[in-house]
Amino acid sequence: MSVMKDFDVKEYLQNGKEIYSQRENIEKLADKLSKNEYQNIVMIGIGGTWMEWYPVAEYLRHLSDFPVYLENAGELLVKKDLNYLTNKSLVLTSSDSGDTKEIVAAVKYCNQKGIEVYGFTKNPESALGKLLKESINGSLAECENAYLMYFMLTLRIYQNWGYYKDYGRWADQMKQLYPNLLRFREEFEPRAQSIARKYYNSPLTMIVGSGMLWGETCMFSMCILEEMQWVRTRPVTSADFFHGPLELVDDTLPVYLIKGEDEYRALDERVERFLPKHTNSFEVFDTKDFVFEGIDDDFRQICSPMIITSLLTDRLASWYQQYTGHDLNFRRYYRQFDY
Amino acid sequence: MSVMKDFDVKEYLQNGKEIYSQRENIEKLADKLSKNEYQNIVMIGIGGTWMEWYPVAEYLRHLSDFPVYLENAGELLVKKDLNYLTNKSLVLTSSDSGDTKEIVAAVKYCNQKGIEVYGFTKNPESALGKLLKESINGSLAECENAYLMYFMLTLRIYQNWGYYKDYGRWADQMKQLYPNLLRFREEFEPRAQSIARKYYNSPLTMIVGSGMLWGETCMFSMCILEEMQWVRTRPVTSADFFHGPLELVDDTLPVYLIKGEDEYRALDERVERFLPKHTNSFEVFDTKDFVFEGIDDDFRQICSPMIITSLLTDRLASWYQQYTGHDLNFRRYYRQFDY
Repeated sequence: MSVMKDFDVKEYLQNGKEIYSQRENIEKLADKLSKNEYQNIVMIGIGGTWMEWYPVAEYLRHLSDFPVYLENAGELLVKKDLNYLTNKSLVLTSSDSGDTKEIVAAVKYCNQKGIEVYGFTKNPESALGKLLKESINGSLAECENAYLMYFMLTLRIYQNWGYYKDYGRWADQMKQLYPNLLRFREEFEPRAQSIARKYYNSPLTMIVGSGMLWGETCMFSMCILEEMQWVRTRPVTSADFFHGPLELVDDTLPVYLIKGEDEYRALDERVERFLPKHTNSFEVFDTKDFVFEGIDDDFRQICSPMIITSLLTDRLASWYQQYTGHDLNFRRYYRQFDY
Repeated sequence: MSVMKDFDVKEYLQNGKEIYSQRENIEKLADKLSKNEYQNIVMIGIGGTWMEWYPVAEYLRHLSDFPVYLENAGELLVKKDLNYLTNKSLVLTSSDSGDTKEIVAAVKYCNQKGIEVYGFTKNPESALGKLLKESINGSLAECENAYLMYFMLTLRIYQNWGYYKDYGRWADQMKQLYPNLLRFREEFEPRAQSIARKYYNSPLTMIVGSGMLWGETCMFSMCILEEMQWVRTRPVTSADFFHGPLELVDDTLPVYLIKGEDEYRALDERVERFLPKHTNSFEVFDTKDFVFEGIDDDFRQICSPMIITSLLTDRLASWYQQYTGHDLNFRRYYRQFDY
């Protein structure tokens, strides 16, 4: 087993066990919520949390026509066409710190309208923790924690509602999640170093993704490279790539293509065919290259954002930090003052 | 009256009259379609056409809870959660040339499912023209033409359905649209030249917008700067700006803020407060600075994308071309071969 940069294997696996141990609490909450008669689900996020809810919303829409809305908290606070947000909505949100300004304001807004909100936060004593009707308290610092807990809650509800039948098998197999994601990190480590070394000081990096992985595409682009590394990016979907961004492609512009395993893969593949003909500066991150042990193939779509976050948000970010010399925790503007 | 670069005033006003003269055809089609019992509206676009349908979808959602879906044609062709697309859907699309690959394929896909599609194309003999159940034939080359015709069709239908009551007054006043947009161009011309001269060779330009103007934000970013000028951009919404992109802001990164007059304006204003404190390289394009004659203020939201397209897609693009020396019509990849 190789040693990974800025990574404590023991702590990671221990953290995974703690998150998994929330299963009982989450299922209890899911079973309670399932008994209510909702007309829709409204998920509220902003920045990284919006991006984490994205594949959950996407996946639920594959299982049922039940309306699922994913709202940007900042926009929710000004929107006028929000009639679907009522006390018949199951409203879910999250914030690791529990003090993200727009999230706290959005939950207050819901509460003022008599709408209860449920969610996830590390700290039940935080502003968000106190506003939530009920909260699951686990660290969301690793994105896979968020994905695991959000899917546990929503897939269990969907099983109770008759929209999904594999919750039990999936949740049982998720015991194997963290050891698998650890192995994927180890497999990817040398490549993470080499990619970061090659591209860390590029003037612009284009990041292409789709479907279940659009959230992670934005996560690496906006949260890691832009916010944490002050590295300029251009995130774009695989479909939109061919309507504008393609004309920028040449050897001076690194393009990162994030390939998933859902129906949008055909669009990713079109980008993959285009790139090698017009640039030498591209990297493909394909979830298919990473093989789970003890997790069935029909759960790969659900787990695909967890794979990408292990590779990019964790390993590649860590190596970017090494080469840029810019601390991932240092911000000059974000949360430094009011705006 | 000043002389504008690459602009024929007479031809522009004549073109405006021709587009307006489609009103009768459009209303006839609207009245016919209104009699059908639809369950939703599905608009299909890609690239520029998706961006033009965007504010139409947005505005209709302000008028009613009737479900309106805006689909990217490339994604529609692979999507699995499309159950709302049925023969009870009013499906609308458009393509100036009538041969945009993904649009043609998406309409074929609808037709194979027994779903009729209506739309706009310059050429009724084009591939798209032949597939449409009925088409309105006017040039979409100027984006304001598209906005005017799409709104004529949909607002008339919404009036017939009882969701809108001002169609007649609005449509009558739209006779004044082109002379107003001409004047806005003239007012903006010196600023267009000065902005293009100052920023045309910036390594990256960030373009921020929201709500009714998000489509135009993408239009200037993707269709004009990226596709037509090979100028690198980073489009971002006013809400997302504060969750990543803000950390990139300094004097080396021009930021263009497109300010509208809908409820999202508060988010634009937050960006506007932030910028001058952290950079000298920014420009604000505020639709409020342009005052209509003969068009009532309560129609400003509908007309706001038309203002921005006059300023940016037309005038600023033309001056970028002047300074980059790169012909707006020249593509190296797009539509040059199969991909």
